[in-house]
Amino acid sequence: MWKELLENVRNTTPLVHSITNYVTVNDCANILLACGASPIMADAVEEAAEITSLCGALVINIGTLHSGSIPSMFAAGRQANVCEHPVILDPVGAGASKLRTETAKQLIEEISFTVIRGNSSEIKALAMGAADTKGVDADVADKVTAESLEQAVRFAKDFSKKTGAVIAITGELDIVANHESAFVIRNGRPEMGKITGTGCMLTAISAAFLAANKENPLEAMAGAVCAMGLCGERAFQRLAAQEGNATYRCKIIDELYHLDGETLEKGASYECW
Amino acid sequence: MWKELLENVRNTTPLVHSITNYVTVNDCANILLACGASPIMADAVEEAAEITSLCGALVINIGTLHSGSIPSMFAAGRQANVCEHPVILDPVGAGASKLRTETAKQLIEEISFTVIRGNSSEIKALAMGAADTKGVDADVADKVTAESLEQAVRFAKDFSKKTGAVIAITGELDIVANHESAFVIRNGRPEMGKITGTGCMLTAISAAFLAANKENPLEAMAGAVCAMGLCGERAFQRLAAQEGNATYRCKIIDELYHLDGETLEKGASYECW
Amino acid sequence: MWKELLENVRNTTPLVHSITNYVTVNDCANILLACGASPIMADAVEEAAEITSLCGALVINIGTLHSGSIPSMFAAGRQANVCEHPVILDPVGAGASKLRTETAKQLIEEISFTVIRGNSSEIKALAMGAADTKGVDADVADKVTAESLEQAVRFAKDFSKKTGAVIAITGELDIVANHESAFVIRNGRPEMGKITGTGCMLTAISAAFLAANKENPLEAMAGAVCAMGLCGERAFQRLAAQEGNATYRCKIIDELYHLDGETLEKGASYECW
Repeated sequence: MWKELLENVRNTTPLVHSITNYVTVNDCANILLACGASPIMADAVEEAAEITSLCGALVINIGTLHSGSIPSMFAAGRQANVCEHPVILDPVGAGASKLRTETAKQLIEEISFTVIRGNSSEIKALAMGAADTKGVDADVADKVTAESLEQAVRFAKDFSKKTGAVIAITGELDIVANHESAFVIRNGRPEMGKITGTGCMLTAISAAFLAANKENPLEAMAGAVCAMGLCGERAFQRLAAQEGNATYRCKIIDELYHLDGETLEKGASYECW
Repeated sequence: MWKELLENVRNTTPLVHSITNYVTVNDCANILLACGASPIMADAVEEAAEITSLCGALVINIGTLHSGSIPSMFAAGRQANVCEHPVILDPVGAGASKLRTETAKQLIEEISFTVIRGNSSEIKALAMGAADTKGVDADVADKVTAESLEQAVRFAKDFSKKTGAVIAITGELDIVANHESAFVIRNGRPEMGKITGTGCMLTAISAAFLAANKENPLEAMAGAVCAMGLCGERAFQRLAAQEGNATYRCKIIDELYHLDGETLEKGASYECW
Repeated sequence: MWKELLENVRNTTPLVHSITNYVTVNDCANILLACGASPIMADAVEEAAEITSLCGALVINIGTLHSGSIPSMFAAGRQANVCEHPVILDPVGAGASKLRTETAKQLIEEISFTVIRGNSSEIKALAMGAADTKGVDADVADKVTAESLEQAVRFAKDFSKKTGAVIAITGELDIVANHESAFVIRNGRPEMGKITGTGCMLTAISAAFLAANKENPLEAMAGAVCAMGLCGERAFQRLAAQEGNATYRCKIIDELYHLDGETLEKGASYECW
């Protein structure tokens, strides 16, 4: 399965429109090219919807949100819905400021997302009602460990039911769930957290997987998570003693550049829940 | 000839002002340093013209155009003309949105560019009249191949005549033309297209070559194209089996850092048309 | 001493808020992670002060200043003062445009900075009165060499007295001074100037050192300068013949990733003035 998902990206070269932060945007563009897709970044409201129409998928990443880019996110998101293009939300820092939390929540209300991908505290911030910021259901998601896994999977499925989106909660363990099924994915290395933008990069390639596998968003999203984690493992093995996070970043992108379907099929470490 | 063009950059350390996109801006700054120039990025309208005055050349790259940066492009461009500094336009994504196409066309109307550099579809979008988006002359430029080369060179010369700028159309084959002469350049590797920003980086170093060789814009631009392509070839030879586009990017910049005039002179692969 | 300063960063993982330029922001985020801190970039005025409150230190870097980010710098700076968080100013390009010089001066008037770090011409531009741009005291700082060192140290101490901030003037020789004491630091390599953003990266990690060593801002700042310079030296030793500025950049970040307190203690090259 994973093999075909990746090969579909390589064979169709989806064009991915990203409205994203300026911190990690270069790595997102290069990792899209590495996985066989083609990037366009455009966040001016005058062109956002028009660019979306040309593309196969849309990324909305709120990492450096500002008053100029918010209307573009809504315009592009609505257009993606009209065109029936996959659209993925990366709610970077949701929970850290009112602007981020509220913008992400409004985006979820107005736009039908194919996938919402974040770490557990970001997803928790989105799942909370305004009057319910210490609710129990979301709290379980705060750290996904072996012990809390069952609860976290249930939380992800519930949030998927509520939003209609595939939910991806990434961290030590990764959960990718729709309202009834879930994958728990064990690929990856903790050292990936020492590189800025591994989450953003995962979101970027997920859009490519979604564009190339429109009929299977759950599997496409899980495939992107496996691919990113596996490249993190393989790049880590190739790190020399004195190499650190800057070189590790390059090597992860390089690994994806060379990743083939067979290797992904064999290396994917997951369970169905 | 190529030798002197590069050595003039290294000996004069031109300061290059770039109003450019936030996707590839870091690589543009590092490759300017690698070729012996010095970068300044400044896109606030309050300072754009003032910074231009301090510098030896100006880059206008519309890769992530927005309402704040457009007036700065016009202000800086006009100031560059007043100061008689070389100014180069990179119409990234012209043709992909009305905002990009129209902004690029207005820039060409109001500012006297020394060079316009893009891929064939970008240059085509600029050469088209509003009522003439399927015109034949530009269509020939859509893909420059051995078969269409003669037509493409004629198209570039005609567009140079119309705009007064040296026209650089880069792709599989590169054409650099003024209204009467042209270079066809065969340096480079197709894998360079798998790195985000190789076009932007070429534009950046072209500005340095233009600043250091003000009397010979056609040759200066052709020299920059040869240098970039040659560094792409040399870096490719040094790629290990598992290295991909992220490492390739670093190695191209590294190659330019060490490129000397002799090596450029020997490695340049070009014909005069 | 240097050992503990670095270990305090690694042991406390300070969260650093940066309002910074889009040219070098990715390297700043990665080098913060490399030194054991955690980065947040947020420049929207709607969230700037709120994000500052969550963090342990604030960076204000004016490298690509624009009308949207200036109010955020003031709002975040004031909030950092209210919270008694260390706040560091990097006046990139002060002196190159009125916008930069005036904004930096106003920031210094309204915000109590823990540290101001720049090269000698930037610091000079800030120290000058409007009617006094050729004043002698600042001129001596224009190039810090063995001959001018004594005058430059006195200038730094005077400017520290005037501003209340620790002053760091970096270049061939680095000076870190408060109103009565100074460190002169000899770590580093001239080739670091061929990488875009080594100054910005130093400012970023300085904020982490300041956050983790709040009682000793002079020593904390000097420790960051030693660490950055030492990593520049160590990375340079590991450069292969064909490696240039792009790879050097990665290797400097990698060196900091692995730098331990003992190595910093032994490698720091400094004198007390």
